[in-house]
Amino acid sequence: MSSDVSPLTLNRISIYLRSLRRLQRQGIERISSQRLAERFHLSSAQIRKDLAQFGEFGIRGVGYEVSELIERLTALLGLDLPRRLIIVGAGNLGTALARFVGFNSGSFEVVAVVDSDPDKVGERIGRLHIRSPDRLEETVAATHAEIGVLTVPAEAAQENYDHLVACGIQAVLNFAPVRLELDPRTVVKNVDFRIHLEELGYFLTRTQE
Amino acid sequence: MSSDVSPLTLNRISIYLRSLRRLQRQGIERISSQRLAERFHLSSAQIRKDLAQFGEFGIRGVGYEVSELIERLTALLGLDLPRRLIIVGAGNLGTALARFVGFNSGSFEVVAVVDSDPDKVGERIGRLHIRSPDRLEETVAATHAEIGVLTVPAEAAQENYDHLVACGIQAVLNFAPVRLELDPRTVVKNVDFRIHLEELGYFLTRTQE
Repeated sequence: MSSDVSPLTLNRISIYLRSLRRLQRQGIERISSQRLAERFHLSSAQIRKDLAQFGEFGIRGVGYEVSELIERLTALLGLDLPRRLIIVGAGNLGTALARFVGFNSGSFEVVAVVDSDPDKVGERIGRLHIRSPDRLEETVAATHAEIGVLTVPAEAAQENYDHLVACGIQAVLNFAPVRLELDPRTVVKNVDFRIHLEELGYFLTRTQE
Repeated sequence: MSSDVSPLTLNRISIYLRSLRRLQRQGIERISSQRLAERFHLSSAQIRKDLAQFGEFGIRGVGYEVSELIERLTALLGLDLPRRLIIVGAGNLGTALARFVGFNSGSFEVVAVVDSDPDKVGERIGRLHIRSPDRLEETVAATHAEIGVLTVPAEAAQENYDHLVACGIQAVLNFAPVRLELDPRTVVKNVDFRIHLEELGYFLTRTQE
């Protein structure tokens, strides 16, 4: 497996996987890159190029076996392994994410929620009790959390990121609207809802011309 | 302006714009596609191809004027026009988004929050009062809302989407984990946090090999 796959390629692989799962639910067993491209408004050359990085998948003239391709892309993204999440910041967003189905299905599971507010510690979100960050290292070790989800205010994000890293977390999903100074041993994805608003803005501009 | 720009291209244009704004904050006035690509782990050929769709931006051998390119991409995405948001669903996620800085800066502004729970109607989120969906059409007209943000549970998403469309909303940001049946006059962006978890899962798989 190539170790320097670009973030944009990974993003597309995720989109392909999502599209293939939809086809599978519709009972489609085999599809060509051409048809896959048409159905999901992608480029067939791009699909073939992206997939070729990871080995031979399709058969010329026949296309891809949907279930096989799903299995291989799932393994490629490491989605067949359990990934436990720790949410740091039990405000509105952290609470919503702790309950979010997508964070508690497939191989993903929220195993801990942490908040520095003493009034919140001990309160429940679903089946989880909110914990204090004072014992974060123990919490990470006991729950086998691997992915930190940062939902603290912008001004608290760096400190909480550093704390997660010191406790052994290597992957962080950052919802705080701030650029973190990164430890090179970690990977951080910044979630930016505005990018979607900007695309909608573009659509409105076009229709209003 | 080409009217059939692919969603992936638009996504990249948003990323370029974000990268350019960062360069501008750092005081950088001019940059080549090559350097832009290196700094943000993008492809320089892709950058040139994407931008060429929208006219001549860079000067060969000199590169792009950062401020000019920002201005043109901003206008291209319609980000120089005010876009007002109406949030439907005042749960944890809707409340977090109503307060989210990115939804209330630049040309974006949350102008209304709606919830069908009579206990919530009249309550305040920041400077906004939660309104009943019974008078949605009046609310949309009075606030000039253009983008609907769906933060209702999955089972209520279709009905609320249909209601927004009937009230004249053409652009919807859907946070409900469900595929909506779309009215062809509208554009919908589905926000899926899981795509980011999947990328982090891929990173962990690689580092754990």
